[in-house]
Amino acid sequence: MKAALENPARKIHRLIATENALRRLQDDEVDGLVGPDAVHQGLLLEVDPLPSPDIDDVDLSGIVLVLDQITDPHNVGAILRSAAAFSVTAIVTTSRHSPEATGVLAKAASGALEFVPMVMVPNLARALESLKSRNVFVVGLDSSGEADLADLGVRAPLAIVLGAEGKGLRQLTRATCDQVARVDLPGKIKSLNVSNAAALALYVAARQLAAR
Amino acid sequence: MKAALENPARKIHRLIATENALRRLQDDEVDGLVGPDAVHQGLLLEVDPLPSPDIDDVDLSGIVLVLDQITDPHNVGAILRSAAAFSVTAIVTTSRHSPEATGVLAKAASGALEFVPMVMVPNLARALESLKSRNVFVVGLDSSGEADLADLGVRAPLAIVLGAEGKGLRQLTRATCDQVARVDLPGKIKSLNVSNAAALALYVAARQLAAR
Repeated sequence: MKAALENPARKIHRLIATENALRRLQDDEVDGLVGPDAVHQGLLLEVDPLPSPDIDDVDLSGIVLVLDQITDPHNVGAILRSAAAFSVTAIVTTSRHSPEATGVLAKAASGALEFVPMVMVPNLARALESLKSRNVFVVGLDSSGEADLADLGVRAPLAIVLGAEGKGLRQLTRATCDQVARVDLPGKIKSLNVSNAAALALYVAARQLAAR
Repeated sequence: MKAALENPARKIHRLIATENALRRLQDDEVDGLVGPDAVHQGLLLEVDPLPSPDIDDVDLSGIVLVLDQITDPHNVGAILRSAAAFSVTAIVTTSRHSPEATGVLAKAASGALEFVPMVMVPNLARALESLKSRNVFVVGLDSSGEADLADLGVRAPLAIVLGAEGKGLRQLTRATCDQVARVDLPGKIKSLNVSNAAALALYVAARQLAAR
């Protein structure tokens, strides 16, 4: 919330605070407004969603992270937080089958909603084509990928595409990627929680970009 | 659940299944037993918790992951899953201020409870001393750490200690570590969700161990 208050792009409607905001975490009025699962600090800030930039205007100076129908707000929030930690310049999601940027998601994002613009697109494959037309290298992440991401040698400008847990990348999404990579794991479990996978992919890709 | 059924160490009491287990995700009986937040597959398996090994018997052939009062079951579950993916040989937690290994945690762990033994200890600093007496190198992770984990050059046997979000490592935990390291992040947000931080730390440490 501190980040939202400090963000000049954020249009603020109302700030609701409980009398003893930090002690009374369970304040009913705020609970009711943000939803029962969103832990809050006894404060509620009413704002407009930040404007969603056009896909053709996305800043390509950092990595672009693309989410293919990841629906869990805890995961999308944690992904946003990692995105801000790795200087991602935009997150692209589908307008449908994506969680709203409020409540649980905003809390898990821990202020990151103010730093990383969310681009909502009706058609993900078309959005990837638009990025490719601007020379973006589009890498999908999937456990069945052809190469280990660590060996891929990615280049900027770069987009990384993540699919939903279980489902993975949709077929058309996958077909539109320049390359599909996996992250090799040595243990008995061969896939990670999607936000953990996102953090790892950003780390690996950022190191490769920095080394070039 | 498949992993639990296949685990010979797991004592199974009862398997409850709905008639149309995969379709009817919201089945009330199972919901009531596992808790409203735990997404399940219409199936409930009643088992004993796996035996908690003694800290002095922990297998040191892989990394040992130590959690200092991390309470969120989504996060602990995701950490377990990453631990299994990186061949962690034990997770050490405090008996108090840790979530139970059921419901939300088990679901987020995605089968990892069957692969990584959980060691519950009454006193974390004493457990770390026990590991150190067996020549384990104990690295705490904290944003105020003295060195970047990537530059530390860890050695086996290795334990990595993670603190709760916000609170970080407790003072005595921190003082007991051989070294406290940070993970450098280039962006505007300087800390990750704790399960994302765990995945990253395991990746970085496993690479260093493999390179030695």
